Amino acid sequence: MWDRVVESVPNISEGRRREVVEAVVAAADGPDRKVIDFSMDADHNRAVITLVGTPAGVEEGILGLAGKTLELIDLRKHTGAHPRMGAVDVIPFIPVRGVEMEDCIALSRRVGEKIAQEFDLPVYLYEESASSPQRRDLAAIRKGEFEGLAEKMLLPEWKPDFGPTRPHPSGGAVAVGAREFLIAYNIELATSDLSVAKKVARAVRHSSGGLRYVKALGFPLEEKGVVQVSMNLTNFKKTPVIRVFELVKREAARYGVNVLRSELVGMIPRQAVYDVAAACLQLDSLTPDYVLEDRIEEALS
Amino acid sequence: MWDRVVESVPNISEGRRREVVEAVVAAADGPDRKVIDFSMDADHNRAVITLVGTPAGVEEGILGLAGKTLELIDLRKHTGAHPRMGAVDVIPFIPVRGVEMEDCIALSRRVGEKIAQEFDLPVYLYEESASSPQRRDLAAIRKGEFEGLAEKMLLPEWKPDFGPTRPHPSGGAVAVGAREFLIAYNIELATSDLSVAKKVARAVRHSSGGLRYVKALGFPLEEKGVVQVSMNLTNFKKTPVIRVFELVKREAARYGVNVLRSELVGMIPRQAVYDVAAACLQLDSLTPDYVLEDRIEEALS
Repeated sequence: MWDRVVESVPNISEGRRREVVEAVVAAADGPDRKVIDFSMDADHNRAVITLVGTPAGVEEGILGLAGKTLELIDLRKHTGAHPRMGAVDVIPFIPVRGVEMEDCIALSRRVGEKIAQEFDLPVYLYEESASSPQRRDLAAIRKGEFEGLAEKMLLPEWKPDFGPTRPHPSGGAVAVGAREFLIAYNIELATSDLSVAKKVARAVRHSSGGLRYVKALGFPLEEKGVVQVSMNLTNFKKTPVIRVFELVKREAARYGVNVLRSELVGMIPRQAVYDVAAACLQLDSLTPDYVLEDRIEEALS
Repeated sequence: MWDRVVESVPNISEGRRREVVEAVVAAADGPDRKVIDFSMDADHNRAVITLVGTPAGVEEGILGLAGKTLELIDLRKHTGAHPRMGAVDVIPFIPVRGVEMEDCIALSRRVGEKIAQEFDLPVYLYEESASSPQRRDLAAIRKGEFEGLAEKMLLPEWKPDFGPTRPHPSGGAVAVGAREFLIAYNIELATSDLSVAKKVARAVRHSSGGLRYVKALGFPLEEKGVVQVSMNLTNFKKTPVIRVFELVKREAARYGVNVLRSELVGMIPRQAVYDVAAACLQLDSLTPDYVLEDRIEEALS
C-alpha cells in the first residue's frame, strides 16, 4: 500500500443512469488512486463513490470526477428523495494512513479553490474545513437546495468560500471539506416495540445529551419484527465503537430488552477494530506492532 | 504482500553468542521470505526466529538456516535450561494466508526429507505432520534430550521419519511439523493469592478438563504483587481468544477476583483480532471485506 493514504467519498446527483455513474468513476481512477466502491440509489437519485489514494492522486481524481460530473449531470432535470444542491453535491476528504486531519483540511481548500477556478462552480467549505461555525454542518449549507441557491447565495453570510456568487447553471454548488472516517453501525434490539429503539437512540446520541460523536435514530425492521438503533459514528478515535455498543446494551436493558445482533453498513477502519478487541480483552492497547500481518507488511515495505 | 504466506518459527540451541544467531538469521533471509523477528534467551541458551514468506521461499530459507546452524552450533558443548535434542531443535510451519494446514503438512514433510538427505540429520515429524499419535507431542519426542538420543532412537517406536537411525554427532536430531498459529496470552488477576491463578488455570486448560486448545499455568508476578494466568492458545479458530478471556474472568469471579489487565506476548493473527471484535459487538462475522485497509489492499493487488 501507499505510505500516505487519503479517502474521499464524493456524492453525485445521479442514481439511475448507470452509464453516467460509470463514466464518472472512470474519470476519477488513476495510477495513484483507486475507486474501491460505489453504490447507486434510484429513489435518492444519488451515487456514493469511494476513492482512495495518495493525497496528490486523490486530488487529481476528484478534479477529474468533478469535471465529468458537471459535463454529464444537469440538476435542472434532477428529482430525487435526497436533499442536494449540486451535480457533484459533497466532497469530503478523510485521513486514512500517514496523514493528519490538518493535511486533509489543506487538501480540501486546495481542491475547493481549483474546482472554483476550473469549472466556475461556487464552493462551500464544511465540517473541519469550515470558515465559520455555521458552515460546519452540511445540512445548514444545503438547506434550500439547488432550487433556492441563487437567492441564498446573495445573503452575505452565505457567500461561497471560492468561486462566483451565483450558482453554476446546471451544476449548482458543491460542499468540500475534511472529516474523520464515518462508521455506519446498526444495533438490532430483541423487541418489536419501536419506542424502546427511539428511547435508546435518544439516550446515546449527541444531540439529545448522549455521546459526543454519535448520531442515532430508532427504526422498525418490519420483516424481522424487531427494532433497530441506526447510528453514524463520526469519530471512532474519540467515541470508540465498543463504548457505543455497551451504552446501547445498557440502555436497552432498562426496558428488559436484549441486543439481538449488530451490523456494519459499509466499512470500518482497521484501528477501530483493533480498539474494540483491546477494550474487550483488557489489553493496554492493540497497536499494529502486535499483529502478524502488520509486522509482515512493515518488514516488506 | 504475497498472495500465499507461510510462517516458520525455528528454535535453535544458541541464546548467548549473538554473532552466531545473526549468521543463522542471515542464512534464512531471501527475496521471497523475510525474518521479521528473533529473540535470544541466555538462560535457556536458545533463540526463536520468525520467518515468513511464500511456501517455496520459506522452504529455501529453512534449508539455509538448518545448514548454517549445523555448521556453527555443536550440541556437545551446549548447556541451558530449556530441553533440546538438536542444534536446530524444532521447525514448525504455520499457515498464514492463502495456505491450508494440508499445504503446511506437505511442506513439512518435503523439508524434513530434504534436511535428512542434505545434512544426514534424523528428522521426526510432529504435531499435525506426525506419523503416529505419540509423535504429535513435541515433549514426548524430545524426552531424554540430546544426551539420551542415541539410545532412544534404537527403539522401534522412535525410529526417525527421515534420515539415519543415529544422531548427527554435533547436531542431534530435529522435529519438523505443521501447526496452527500459537498465541501467547497472559491475564493478570487483581489478587496476590497464587492459588486463585492456579485454580483458574486448571479450570480453563485442556489437560485438566478445560477448553480444547488452551494450555495454562498460574504464576505470581512478585514485583506487581498480583498473579497471572499464563496461556498458550494453540488454535484460535476453534477456541477463540474472547472465549478464553470470558471463561478466565468468570472463574476468577468465583473467588471474588477481577481481571486486572491482559497482555499478548509476541504476535496475534489479524483474523483473531477481528473475531474478538465481532464477538464483542455481536456482529454476525467480521471479514476483511468490511475493513477499509483490507479493501484498499484488495483493490491494489
